Amino acid sequence: MIILSAQKVIFVVTHGEEFKDRLEPPLHLATLVALLEAEAKMIYTMSAGLLLKKGVPDKLKAIGKENTLLETIQEAKEAGVKIYVCSPVLDMYNLTREDLIDEVDDIVGGMYLVTESLEADVTYTF
Amino acid sequence: MIILSAQKVIFVVTHGEEFKDRLEPPLHLATLVALLEAEAKMIYTMSAGLLLKKGVPDKLKAIGKENTLLETIQEAKEAGVKIYVCSPVLDMYNLTREDLIDEVDDIVGGMYLVTESLEADVTYTF
Amino acid sequence: MIILSAQKVIFVVTHGEEFKDRLEPPLHLATLVALLEAEAKMIYTMSAGLLLKKGVPDKLKAIGKENTLLETIQEAKEAGVKIYVCSPVLDMYNLTREDLIDEVDDIVGGMYLVTESLEADVTYTF
Repeated sequence: MIILSAQKVIFVVTHGEEFKDRLEPPLHLATLVALLEAEAKMIYTMSAGLLLKKGVPDKLKAIGKENTLLETIQEAKEAGVKIYVCSPVLDMYNLTREDLIDEVDDIVGGMYLVTESLEADVTYTF
Repeated sequence: MIILSAQKVIFVVTHGEEFKDRLEPPLHLATLVALLEAEAKMIYTMSAGLLLKKGVPDKLKAIGKENTLLETIQEAKEAGVKIYVCSPVLDMYNLTREDLIDEVDDIVGGMYLVTESLEADVTYTF
Repeated sequence: MIILSAQKVIFVVTHGEEFKDRLEPPLHLATLVALLEAEAKMIYTMSAGLLLKKGVPDKLKAIGKENTLLETIQEAKEAGVKIYVCSPVLDMYNLTREDLIDEVDDIVGGMYLVTESLEADVTYTF
């Protein structure tokens, strides 16, 4: 087994539901990182934030998958992945915290995104 | 205040005007980095280069924003952000330096992009 | 000449053929890295995997280019670039290794992508 402990990987997710090929891969990769006991943080921003609106991920399926996006999110959470939404998403689409699914760990600002990336070993922007 | 001095963050911007949710966030993040006195360099490439064509950014508004894209670019510049366009953009769309807005600091090649990323602490590709 | 030896750059390619502005730049950048004698690995995932299906890249041309995508891929390979496809692409689109062009060096899993990025100096996600 590869030991990644004390390493941190950030996944900035930026594409919304019209990109069906992009729904599952970031969650899959983040889950792998968490299973290796490294820190995996996903930050949903731009139109990807809408993927985490109540009523949305339970109706979406990735290409070739049986599971809904919500189930894939829940699997990631069980593995230890943290899920954040970037605060400008709420302004852009007139949403409040209550409009988002409970699986979202927190709302964060751009400064959080930048400082987390500076501390991370890898930052992916999907 | 977080001290990021001597750190460098590269923002490779790749999506054009049809992606209204992606216009403002890279500029916002780069501005944050510059305000922390770290080096923030944005390199516009692929169809994102067309965002910096004269007559374009003054007519574009990001979702939920009052400011035009040009005003957001000017705010970033005032904070110290450097803005570059990748030279293949000029070839791809038959443009010259004179077709781009004055806020563009320079035209750079792919080698610049690669070597800047190798020196940077973080490279985002939006 | 800039010496990048022993450095490694990963290019995660994620966008498919509908994004004509995105076909050539990752290959161009990876070729530059390889010509500097650094390690350049491209991992095609999401709908970008379909770019490497037999019969596809020989019919695609990037904006403003005379060469086909296949010819650009072959130039990259000659420079030393390694080209991989992420295994979920095969599941997503019901493909086998035999459906992909011979220029693909190997099929790799998500764990390969993550561990290569952790070892790399830069990871671009185009």
